Amino acid sequence: MGVEIERKFLVEGSAWRTLGEATLLRQGYLNADPARTVRVRIEGAEGILTIKSKNVGASRGEWEYPIPLLDAEELLDTLCERPLVEKYRRRIAHAGFTWEVDEFLGENAGLIVAEIELPSEDTAFDKPDWIGQEVTGEKRYYNSSLIRFPYAQWTTP
Amino acid sequence: MGVEIERKFLVEGSAWRTLGEATLLRQGYLNADPARTVRVRIEGAEGILTIKSKNVGASRGEWEYPIPLLDAEELLDTLCERPLVEKYRRRIAHAGFTWEVDEFLGENAGLIVAEIELPSEDTAFDKPDWIGQEVTGEKRYYNSSLIRFPYAQWTTP
Repeated sequence: MGVEIERKFLVEGSAWRTLGEATLLRQGYLNADPARTVRVRIEGAEGILTIKSKNVGASRGEWEYPIPLLDAEELLDTLCERPLVEKYRRRIAHAGFTWEVDEFLGENAGLIVAEIELPSEDTAFDKPDWIGQEVTGEKRYYNSSLIRFPYAQWTTP
Repeated sequence: MGVEIERKFLVEGSAWRTLGEATLLRQGYLNADPARTVRVRIEGAEGILTIKSKNVGASRGEWEYPIPLLDAEELLDTLCERPLVEKYRRRIAHAGFTWEVDEFLGENAGLIVAEIELPSEDTAFDKPDWIGQEVTGEKRYYNSSLIRFPYAQWTTP
């Protein structure tokens, strides 16, 4: 098991758009329960199966396995819960860390979040000026929640 | 994706006990929903992650990945739904096919089922005389159902 320590923020303005190359991510859930999510993702030509445990603060257990691209396509197309989540991800280096900026598509268009993975919960880091309000641990921002209650249905962001 | 074509039967008498060596299987579910089960199993020193789609007749889609034993132990011990399923499995060759006879333990003690995997739904096969009633497709005999409604709670077998 790896432990994923990750903080999540809303994104402001559009400066981030030019700072990294956008890659399309397509993902779905074999289990969207935050107690034990099972996610299938395709990024480029890679299939990845990821199991995550519940968040405790900014931390959660993570088990990740590469799977054949064809398997990932089959699982996404025939087995994962509907809808799938599609987003553009940009990886942006800033002050020694990498920010992952996710620009959601489809039912979640308009939602843009940035995540930073940290070596420990209390690691200090510098925020780029396009980083807004922190939403770490807010369930409605979980990708697994966005399939049940997409951003288009939110009344207050 | 593999397609698993499997028929399941109850087992009678005790002749089967001496026909194969018993291996302990310990397994749990990251999703017990028959629409998309995600199973973690330890058999001997092997960890296996298996995804299965819904049964259509005796067939269902199956995606199987070996995972490190330590990962399988962590997933079973910390993440899978309670209770786990434990059973002794015996593999018994008969008339060109292999029967898997599962003798359940714990809350499912007393339940013994035999499964035969076939190359097609209409393949003919010979039944050993310790094979009883067919239960293919009966949901309560699914291993994923036995964690919610174990054999000890059944009133009629």
